[in-house]
Amino acid sequence: MEKNSSKPLTETLNASGIFAPLKNHLAALDAFLEEQVLEFAPAARESLRYTFTHRGKRLRPALVFFSGWENEETVAPELVRAAATVELIHLATLVHDDILDDAKIRHSSPTLFAKYGSHTAVLLGDAIFAHALKLMSDFDAVELCRALANATREICTGEIWQTAERGNASVSLDDYFAMIQMKTGELFEVSALLGATLAGGGLEKGKAFAKFGRHLGRAYQIFDDIVDYLGDETTIGKTLGTDLASGKFTLPEILFLQKLDATARERFLAEVTAGTFGIKEVVAQMRDAGVFDESRAYFLKETQIAAGALAPYADDAGAKHLLAMSDFVASQVRKIS
Amino acid sequence: MEKNSSKPLTETLNASGIFAPLKNHLAALDAFLEEQVLEFAPAARESLRYTFTHRGKRLRPALVFFSGWENEETVAPELVRAAATVELIHLATLVHDDILDDAKIRHSSPTLFAKYGSHTAVLLGDAIFAHALKLMSDFDAVELCRALANATREICTGEIWQTAERGNASVSLDDYFAMIQMKTGELFEVSALLGATLAGGGLEKGKAFAKFGRHLGRAYQIFDDIVDYLGDETTIGKTLGTDLASGKFTLPEILFLQKLDATARERFLAEVTAGTFGIKEVVAQMRDAGVFDESRAYFLKETQIAAGALAPYADDAGAKHLLAMSDFVASQVRKIS
Repeated sequence: MEKNSSKPLTETLNASGIFAPLKNHLAALDAFLEEQVLEFAPAARESLRYTFTHRGKRLRPALVFFSGWENEETVAPELVRAAATVELIHLATLVHDDILDDAKIRHSSPTLFAKYGSHTAVLLGDAIFAHALKLMSDFDAVELCRALANATREICTGEIWQTAERGNASVSLDDYFAMIQMKTGELFEVSALLGATLAGGGLEKGKAFAKFGRHLGRAYQIFDDIVDYLGDETTIGKTLGTDLASGKFTLPEILFLQKLDATARERFLAEVTAGTFGIKEVVAQMRDAGVFDESRAYFLKETQIAAGALAPYADDAGAKHLLAMSDFVASQVRKIS
Repeated sequence: MEKNSSKPLTETLNASGIFAPLKNHLAALDAFLEEQVLEFAPAARESLRYTFTHRGKRLRPALVFFSGWENEETVAPELVRAAATVELIHLATLVHDDILDDAKIRHSSPTLFAKYGSHTAVLLGDAIFAHALKLMSDFDAVELCRALANATREICTGEIWQTAERGNASVSLDDYFAMIQMKTGELFEVSALLGATLAGGGLEKGKAFAKFGRHLGRAYQIFDDIVDYLGDETTIGKTLGTDLASGKFTLPEILFLQKLDATARERFLAEVTAGTFGIKEVVAQMRDAGVFDESRAYFLKETQIAAGALAPYADDAGAKHLLAMSDFVASQVRKIS
């Protein structure tokens, strides 16, 4: 589950032209989501529509569409349904995240929680989760329903895990990667799997594209962690060092803490706990310690694994679009210094 | 979603012997739920186990087991899985309800929310919902997955609807029945449907048992509404008039408000809003107006429809157990005066 960096990246993504081939697909997705509103009891519709106005980057729907790609004109209804499903799961997690983070603003407008209260936000999030799984079950392919339910559980338990580790300065790299796999990798993976499978790609292709999705998701989460330190506040739109201040140790800090000797480590943690750290000084220290270079290396490793998974599909038009997505995120990482 | 009346009714239920034939079934359910804990990431296990200690009346698992009944010894694994699924959905709704109601105690011990905080409670509720749907998708019968996802969405949107109607003194009887159908009827219905279908009962039997479940669920919710007024606080364990005090109009008030003239209605609502009403006086007025007799009549109508649905299955051992459940709830309603 990601934070408020969405809008600027969305704009950059749109400006990049990577999503341009998806014009018809995304329009069909919007229309489909609007239709879904009527499946909910009238009392829930206004708040549901409001949730839909909080559109994210739609990376997951893009993964679905490109993984099952034919061409710009052909918009297969089953892909639209699958894209809506993963987007709804993602939206539900955001709705609940905003309650937990006491977040009042998302994408420059009030969150559902701020506008309708926690009662509606908790229940509507639940209803959106359930509706997503209902949409999935309309496919008659029970293994897709299973994969999606599994991913949903992993996202939520990944968050519980991360919450439990808050303030634990000894989180291992293994645990970090397991957590981002659960929090972001799983749903990216399922998105690609759904696209490839529903388009009749077969088991081999499904596996390969799922692997691409998984590692793109992990890369994307690392990107998000780096941005928290290095992003320009005005363009990235999130507060520098928010993760650190909240005691959530992400990749850069985990790497940093591993490099400090016992005394330095203790002093650093005491400053973090007391909230007396200067973010600029911390960033400078981390940079000197090579933490961001290493983080970028981990990021690139993920994008390389992702690209490697698609190697046997070099002639697949959809795979080309997917690789462009992955290259784009990599270019964003290179930009931040 | 029901309130804290559970424990005393559970005890009465157990004392009644109605659940005695389920001894092996409920033990298998417990073992199965315990196994599920290991499917969750370690960080979520302690809180999940804690949720399982808050066992309710297990009316929904009982509906599953009796609807697919063979005998006391035969515990079909697919029924255990289905019973776990509906119980997990129910538990997840309770976990989220407790956050929304700011409830610190359930069944005489701290709620998950009180013990682990809202962060864990929101996310674990989500994870339990997702896991339930994953269990369901293991059946290879996608229509069951669909029915369960649908019921889950209806429970949550039913709650949203009820929240939206809070303080609306003009709620119609039709709306009331539609809301209790969503909040309680749906999951009872799916429980019976799962039991009958998984036991190979076929479409006709599935429909009949589903209808029984639906109307038992509605009856049960009416029972819950009456208990809020007439239950003895020490044995029923919930605060008299809590619904009224919170501006939630349930069957007795809806009927009462319909009987008042404009002046009396306005005075009554002003007292409710100001919180200056005396619950004993209100109950006496409502009783004089015949509101509880009417509520009981609505209750009995539901149990009669439920029983009628099972009429073609008079020789079915499971149907006999189900009718005993329904008779038991009816006897509880007769007891409160």
